[in-house]
Amino acid sequence: MEFAAVIHRPDSEMAYFKNDVFQIRLKTKRDDLKKVALIYGDPYSLISENLDPFYQHPQPMDKILQDQYYDYWELEVRLATKRLAYAFVLVDSDDEAYYYNDQGFWPVDHDASLNNANSYFRLPYGHEIDAIHVPSWVAGTVWYQIFPERFANGDPTNDPAGTKSWNPQDHPSRTAYYGGDLQGIIDHLDDLENLGVTGLYFNPLFLAPSNHKYDTIDFFQIDPHFGTNQLFGELVQAAHQRGMRVMLDAVFNHLGINSPQWQDVIRHGQESVYADWFHIHQFPVTYKSTSNPEYSPAISYETFANNPQMTKLNTANPEVQAYLLSIATYWVKEYDIDAWRLDVANEIDHHFWQAFHQRMLDLKPDFYILGEIWHRAQAWLNGDQFSGVMNYPYAGLIIDGIIKRQLSLNQLSAGLSRQLMLYRDQTNMLMFNTLDSHDTARLMTMAAGNYRLVELAIAFLILQPGMPSLYYGTEIGMAGNNDPDCRKPMNWQPDAKGRNLAQQIKKLIAFRHRYGALLTAGKIKFVVVDPDRIQVVRFNDHQQIIGDFDLGSNSYQLQVK
Amino acid sequence: MEFAAVIHRPDSEMAYFKNDVFQIRLKTKRDDLKKVALIYGDPYSLISENLDPFYQHPQPMDKILQDQYYDYWELEVRLATKRLAYAFVLVDSDDEAYYYNDQGFWPVDHDASLNNANSYFRLPYGHEIDAIHVPSWVAGTVWYQIFPERFANGDPTNDPAGTKSWNPQDHPSRTAYYGGDLQGIIDHLDDLENLGVTGLYFNPLFLAPSNHKYDTIDFFQIDPHFGTNQLFGELVQAAHQRGMRVMLDAVFNHLGINSPQWQDVIRHGQESVYADWFHIHQFPVTYKSTSNPEYSPAISYETFANNPQMTKLNTANPEVQAYLLSIATYWVKEYDIDAWRLDVANEIDHHFWQAFHQRMLDLKPDFYILGEIWHRAQAWLNGDQFSGVMNYPYAGLIIDGIIKRQLSLNQLSAGLSRQLMLYRDQTNMLMFNTLDSHDTARLMTMAAGNYRLVELAIAFLILQPGMPSLYYGTEIGMAGNNDPDCRKPMNWQPDAKGRNLAQQIKKLIAFRHRYGALLTAGKIKFVVVDPDRIQVVRFNDHQQIIGDFDLGSNSYQLQVK
Repeated sequence: MEFAAVIHRPDSEMAYFKNDVFQIRLKTKRDDLKKVALIYGDPYSLISENLDPFYQHPQPMDKILQDQYYDYWELEVRLATKRLAYAFVLVDSDDEAYYYNDQGFWPVDHDASLNNANSYFRLPYGHEIDAIHVPSWVAGTVWYQIFPERFANGDPTNDPAGTKSWNPQDHPSRTAYYGGDLQGIIDHLDDLENLGVTGLYFNPLFLAPSNHKYDTIDFFQIDPHFGTNQLFGELVQAAHQRGMRVMLDAVFNHLGINSPQWQDVIRHGQESVYADWFHIHQFPVTYKSTSNPEYSPAISYETFANNPQMTKLNTANPEVQAYLLSIATYWVKEYDIDAWRLDVANEIDHHFWQAFHQRMLDLKPDFYILGEIWHRAQAWLNGDQFSGVMNYPYAGLIIDGIIKRQLSLNQLSAGLSRQLMLYRDQTNMLMFNTLDSHDTARLMTMAAGNYRLVELAIAFLILQPGMPSLYYGTEIGMAGNNDPDCRKPMNWQPDAKGRNLAQQIKKLIAFRHRYGALLTAGKIKFVVVDPDRIQVVRFNDHQQIIGDFDLGSNSYQLQVK
Repeated sequence: MEFAAVIHRPDSEMAYFKNDVFQIRLKTKRDDLKKVALIYGDPYSLISENLDPFYQHPQPMDKILQDQYYDYWELEVRLATKRLAYAFVLVDSDDEAYYYNDQGFWPVDHDASLNNANSYFRLPYGHEIDAIHVPSWVAGTVWYQIFPERFANGDPTNDPAGTKSWNPQDHPSRTAYYGGDLQGIIDHLDDLENLGVTGLYFNPLFLAPSNHKYDTIDFFQIDPHFGTNQLFGELVQAAHQRGMRVMLDAVFNHLGINSPQWQDVIRHGQESVYADWFHIHQFPVTYKSTSNPEYSPAISYETFANNPQMTKLNTANPEVQAYLLSIATYWVKEYDIDAWRLDVANEIDHHFWQAFHQRMLDLKPDFYILGEIWHRAQAWLNGDQFSGVMNYPYAGLIIDGIIKRQLSLNQLSAGLSRQLMLYRDQTNMLMFNTLDSHDTARLMTMAAGNYRLVELAIAFLILQPGMPSLYYGTEIGMAGNNDPDCRKPMNWQPDAKGRNLAQQIKKLIAFRHRYGALLTAGKIKFVVVDPDRIQVVRFNDHQQIIGDFDLGSNSYQLQVK
């Protein structure tokens, strides 16, 4: 038995409370153990007055997933008192058995520790308030991401000076404007409803000079080139009437240099009332300019990346906290939005996100909070900060395994399993699963123009736990390289291949909705049938969905049993 | 290389921010790897404008500790931008090398992932506000725990009816009173100062019927058998004048059944305004009584353990939260206490403890919060809940290894190393290390009356990271079995052996104070010289302390180099 590869961590994704049950997981070296069982009970039942030697009744755990190095074992247990002491019984292929508790490994008959409540792993009490809250609407949600400047121009009167004509074939420059706006979105809500979309995620809408609006000037105002606050309110209402949720993008890591706060710092230096709103190493604030306005090798203040235009906020300052929370509150209270997507969320302190989470859920108990984090995000996903993150590592595996074929299907299955086991079940349901976005090349481009493969990848995506999302135009097969090429004007006159893809994707979305509960909360397994064929199986006690993906022929089948 | 035993978790005790440096740890299978190095840098420096291929400069990590199954590697790194991307280079005894990042294991020359910032482990930004705060006074603190009913009777006028005469040889019953009180403590502050004590931890002082006062009736009132609120204020002042900190014991998990809130529930049932303050399964509240008043097999409400006298509070109820926070605030604001010790802290929700932590540190930035948790406590020790816990697992190893000799010294060294590696360095400094308490048998009894062994164990204790604490009377070798026998009246006329032990312990405390900084924050290693001899080495770049413990002769030496 490889003791050093037996891994458990109480009160984490490996042991947590969920809908009145405790979910327990264990990792052991791949193919090392024949069986694993759980012994568990109320720790106070080991006291003589109440003697119930629960350790005499081990319950077998299920081997639910496997990756390159580990087997993952799981068991759900219920206890009336909600006070859990537990340990694991491990049996290897030679029938050698040990039990494993908070203090290490022991012979299975080691009575001294079996009878000592303090030697067990513990989930001392199952508190609903600490469990991860899953908004009721999650199972029914398929997101659609809109980069507002490029979706549709519904009101030419608000176009910026120099707006270019709407040409989906253009390769947009970093600074181009095409006139997309809120009216354009409202005009196309019926199309989105028809596609089956039930959630709209907008890249930033607030007053900002750039076309992407990540350099916010005023968080309380819709950029006039997009429309008015009132029009935004109408958009939210119109979306809600169609059963669609609305998510806005908040950039709380930094302000654009044109913000009034930073302008005040430039004017008043150390005397500015905003001097402590930022991380300033030296006054007056300066930077060495280069040919790239978004890069400087020497900046006297902290920034996003090395971009002197994006001044990092000091979120430890209570004034900054209050300001950012007032923004977050404003759009929920006044305009009834359902979710925030948080830009560069990993570089802001946990402390602030805990306060943010508390405030948002107080306002709207079913609120959804999405962090932009590209790496492992366990520290933000314990129920006190974000609901989910942009699931780029998961998407990356699908791209590499299905689209680029750089991973074998065994590697794909292992990688996806590993990613799923980083998080609690509730978190996996709340992940934002998209294969492309405003920050990546487009799916069609990664698939080298292969429409069948794009469709197959979307089918693969909708079978995963987590909420699927489509980047605008992906449904009609729009192409585009990395930013800014992935931000072309939407093509409202797709050709036959594009129209056909949209029809197929509409069917896939309908399938996701039809089996939303199972595809959200059901268990998952991956079966690699042969080097070109993988099955994704979603199941519960009553039903089973099998997605069968053949990468030899780029065809797939969805089967419900 | 045993890949399945290579373990890392970002943003945990294995990777954290501390005084402007990042501390990184890795666990690998014991004796499996020859060397481990860290590659690290600012993720944005992998972008072309700023190209700095930091992965070309691996920095060797130190193997700092070892337990039965693992080697622990560590490196402290500093980065001007405080944005850390990192990965590990692993070399096994056959000189096979891999590197290990957030996505798995790779050949050391795998450029695609080396150049991809998103494939690294990340500590995206070092936020001081998220780092664990270490109160400035920690290095100088040696605690002394007082069970107030049994320390000294300074005011016979407040004795409960039936108070027994002060006899340190008595075996106290569960319900006996001996008249100990605050005046008795004040009278002996000089003695404690003389011993070197710099922190006083009091078991509960608030109005409650029992002698232990864990069944609180009124959290805002010192029990009149102990004195008055005013007298408590004088005690705090007198302690502060002597440079001693004061810690009170708060029982927030449950109320005694005599509390006005529970009495209201008994009277008004479901109509009580306090009906939702508890976890009540059925009205009217009832329980099946047994010969043991502290045990019932059937209770219609939730309790501490199975004790119908201790009614569990519903800390998810905002009214209960406000009530408990008002108590915690009151004693800090009105009486200037320095710390709370939190009873049954593990069974209360994290949500509440986060609010509690925030409130206390807002009141007093150097406040110390101690949770009563007997098992692994990682989930409470991430800087947002407790400063430390009653370190029973650590003490238990010392008892089993040094006092009872049930563990070999290799097992002791492995066990202590394993415990230390569960927590961040700051947390280890903040642990409350006591070898006995009101909840255990006394050290002298566990040592079967061996004074030399008791002294040696205390010497071993004061060399550990974490704040040492003495349970009243331990310094003079008082004996006593488990509760209530460990709660005998203090012996104010110890015999020669007791007086001698106290002299030795006084010297040990003076040693701890003299080398407080090193013994708090210095690194540690354990050297097992032979089966009866173990060294504890504390060191930094400038100094080294070696404690040499010979369990054959029960002698020890402390050496400073």
